[in-house]
Amino acid sequence: MQIEELNRSTCINLLAKLRFGRLACAKGSQPYVVPIFYAYNDGYVYSFSTPGQKVDWMRTNPLVCLQVDEIKTPQNWSSVVLFGRYEELPDTLIFKPVRETAYKLLRQREIWWEPGLAREHIEGRENPLLPLFYRIFVEQITGRRALI
Amino acid sequence: MQIEELNRSTCINLLAKLRFGRLACAKGSQPYVVPIFYAYNDGYVYSFSTPGQKVDWMRTNPLVCLQVDEIKTPQNWSSVVLFGRYEELPDTLIFKPVRETAYKLLRQREIWWEPGLAREHIEGRENPLLPLFYRIFVEQITGRRALI
Repeated sequence: MQIEELNRSTCINLLAKLRFGRLACAKGSQPYVVPIFYAYNDGYVYSFSTPGQKVDWMRTNPLVCLQVDEIKTPQNWSSVVLFGRYEELPDTLIFKPVRETAYKLLRQREIWWEPGLAREHIEGRENPLLPLFYRIFVEQITGRRALI
Repeated sequence: MQIEELNRSTCINLLAKLRFGRLACAKGSQPYVVPIFYAYNDGYVYSFSTPGQKVDWMRTNPLVCLQVDEIKTPQNWSSVVLFGRYEELPDTLIFKPVRETAYKLLRQREIWWEPGLAREHIEGRENPLLPLFYRIFVEQITGRRALI
């Protein structure tokens, strides 16, 4: 197996094709990584979440990293990693157009509201459904592909 | 779909069952996340890498986060996230026993040396094969499971 670097346009194409990845954020020197559903469009990764640790951390430190991959076999895979900046899309008039863009992109597959909008039953209480939209401005993107 | 928290022993069992996850580290306030192969044993996650950005960052800041999951369908999945501490296992006499443990655990599946030990052909040069073993001490582990 050999590993080759992917050029930027190949990375963007893979990012745009996929919908599921792992998002890392950090508080102080402690990183945190969780799975997310997303949609890519024109330099931004759009996603959503319920409020919680991930959102709290990204509000404090907007520097994030998203990793996505397409694994066909252990010897035939592509992986893309991007560094980006978290931008919250609050429910205000000024953000209405970009929130509508996010909504349209994310609703293209029925899966889009899972698990961000799932009903959470944790420790006996039911968390309210408070979707929060955000996007990530893609600052740097790199990728690798395995070849047999 | 409902989401339930997993107890510690269920998290550990899932971590021990799986072999592939996403490891996040951080340099300053910038997180970084990459896929890794690993093996869990008795409070530690064992893995290996070739030298590079990930190892450089973990040497400077040993706080890491590993996320693993088992996704059967979008509505039937489990995900485990752990916070831990990076410990390098250098090729010295004092680390020989723990390196042998790491090697035995990781070689249980043939997949174990990919991609850490793959020959890398990047930008026209071939990187030398310099395996580096490390382990992560599991400090905190949590998990969630989706139920339909």
